Amino acid sequence: MMELYGGVEGGATGSNVVLIAADGKIVSKVDGPATNHWGMTLSGGEQEEAIRKMIEQLKVTFPKLSENYYITTDAIGGISTATDTGGIVLISGTGSNCKLVNPDRSVVGCGGWGHLLGDEGSAYWMSHLAIKTVFDAVDNYKHTPFNICLVEKAMCSYFQISDRMALLTHMYRTFEKSKIAGFCRKLAEAAAAGDHLSCHIFRRAGQELAQHVVAVLPHVDQKLHEGELGLPIVCVGSVWNSWDLMRNGFLEVLKEVKQKPVGRSLCKFTMMKLKCSSALGAASLGAKHIGYNLPMNYADNVDVFFEHCFSR
Amino acid sequence: MMELYGGVEGGATGSNVVLIAADGKIVSKVDGPATNHWGMTLSGGEQEEAIRKMIEQLKVTFPKLSENYYITTDAIGGISTATDTGGIVLISGTGSNCKLVNPDRSVVGCGGWGHLLGDEGSAYWMSHLAIKTVFDAVDNYKHTPFNICLVEKAMCSYFQISDRMALLTHMYRTFEKSKIAGFCRKLAEAAAAGDHLSCHIFRRAGQELAQHVVAVLPHVDQKLHEGELGLPIVCVGSVWNSWDLMRNGFLEVLKEVKQKPVGRSLCKFTMMKLKCSSALGAASLGAKHIGYNLPMNYADNVDVFFEHCFSR
Repeated sequence: MMELYGGVEGGATGSNVVLIAADGKIVSKVDGPATNHWGMTLSGGEQEEAIRKMIEQLKVTFPKLSENYYITTDAIGGISTATDTGGIVLISGTGSNCKLVNPDRSVVGCGGWGHLLGDEGSAYWMSHLAIKTVFDAVDNYKHTPFNICLVEKAMCSYFQISDRMALLTHMYRTFEKSKIAGFCRKLAEAAAAGDHLSCHIFRRAGQELAQHVVAVLPHVDQKLHEGELGLPIVCVGSVWNSWDLMRNGFLEVLKEVKQKPVGRSLCKFTMMKLKCSSALGAASLGAKHIGYNLPMNYADNVDVFFEHCFSR
Repeated sequence: MMELYGGVEGGATGSNVVLIAADGKIVSKVDGPATNHWGMTLSGGEQEEAIRKMIEQLKVTFPKLSENYYITTDAIGGISTATDTGGIVLISGTGSNCKLVNPDRSVVGCGGWGHLLGDEGSAYWMSHLAIKTVFDAVDNYKHTPFNICLVEKAMCSYFQISDRMALLTHMYRTFEKSKIAGFCRKLAEAAAAGDHLSCHIFRRAGQELAQHVVAVLPHVDQKLHEGELGLPIVCVGSVWNSWDLMRNGFLEVLKEVKQKPVGRSLCKFTMMKLKCSSALGAASLGAKHIGYNLPMNYADNVDVFFEHCFSR
């Protein structure tokens, strides 16, 4: 019988499955509905226990499905699709999150605490910052050097309201994180049209996302700096489509940290997006788990959209 | 028949009613359950319409209850209990809010937008700041010059959790604003015991509350500065019990604004708490509405807990 390595990417909006032959060729690919099993509040120990139970259940329910199972977090699946060694996964979509995956597969995280305690640099965070800036300016509470007119207008139009009072319904009574986050698209349009406040908000998001990288930098294994790409940063989420608007803010923070002792090892970094499902990385991880190195052309799986070398 | 002026203070946790005779003597006082009618999202026009309907309904349902009705916001009721002329109502309890009531009864507000868009200087805001400071420090995301150990311990003990992961349940799944805000009591204890981070958080709250005053300062009628008390600030809510911890922060901000053109008129201010229900002020407002000045000894209704004169 042919040896097959399966990979599953389970997500909150959809899922992907691949089957890969021992020579690395993709035999089959299927998309499916959401399979996000993990609640946000599983701590390390609880997660291990949940994984153990899940594998047990798989073996009982589908005794002939697979000889071996390996289950891990989406960050490790993502990074394993992009590189052989490890790197940083930096998520900015509705929310935000950052995970460093070291060559030994150990993970150090920063953020990912949801909209009340984190999400800096995400679409929700930018929408919220824009709304808060308008409220504070109208209240004369916090001064902003930027003209708020265009953002206020865009806000009223996006939420279909006539004054800021009516926004409270959207923020509380009918709160929907993705609806608030969706306003960020309008900010991107305003920024592209040259609106200074919107440009400022995206630059701030770039800074915050870079700050996530800075937070895990002391834990980055030296080997990750030494590859051809320098430190690989795998960027996930639709906010990265506005990279041009965030780039300066992102670079400012990393250039600043480069001046400090903690940034000494950082000589180059490469920002990339996945071109394919992280189910590929999952399959390779499963294979590795039973001692087989599935051949994979990592360069085929990613789009490099930015690289930066620091002058010494 | 004896002329009687009734006043009602309707609140989210309880309500008070007084009946006052024409000579200002309180004839009757009754406490009752919550009667908070107002949703947070009524804009000016909607509110006028709601008041009109409510009075109509009162006349139909209780045709013999009262000859006249006057309905207004809690801020105006509060200020009318403390002074004859007007002043600032500064609320800091679970949430926060600020209303300037001028001698002509016009109102200018700052804040009061709930925990997602405002509430600066409130108990919720302080609890959140403490929690966020702990999360960011553990993540190595934002540096704090303060030791977080005591606050982290107090957090785990108050929420009965063993690690910060478990806090997410309290912040999202079972979110209760008053439960989060209640953690502020523990911060007050820690601050009283000398914990630097807790002290810092209360000083920050003092600054934010003062900033609400600064926000409405340009709209303060000159007459409000000229009374014996200087600018009257009526403080509502349990956070004011920790005034000692907030005082320096509060003063810092007002001393700074005093140096600027907008602070020129500010020579003195007096902070006070109501000793009695603002139903008294409501009765006096109702009387005034039909052209009668109910005698009231305002000094009896308040506890002055701080006054400050700026040196020129």
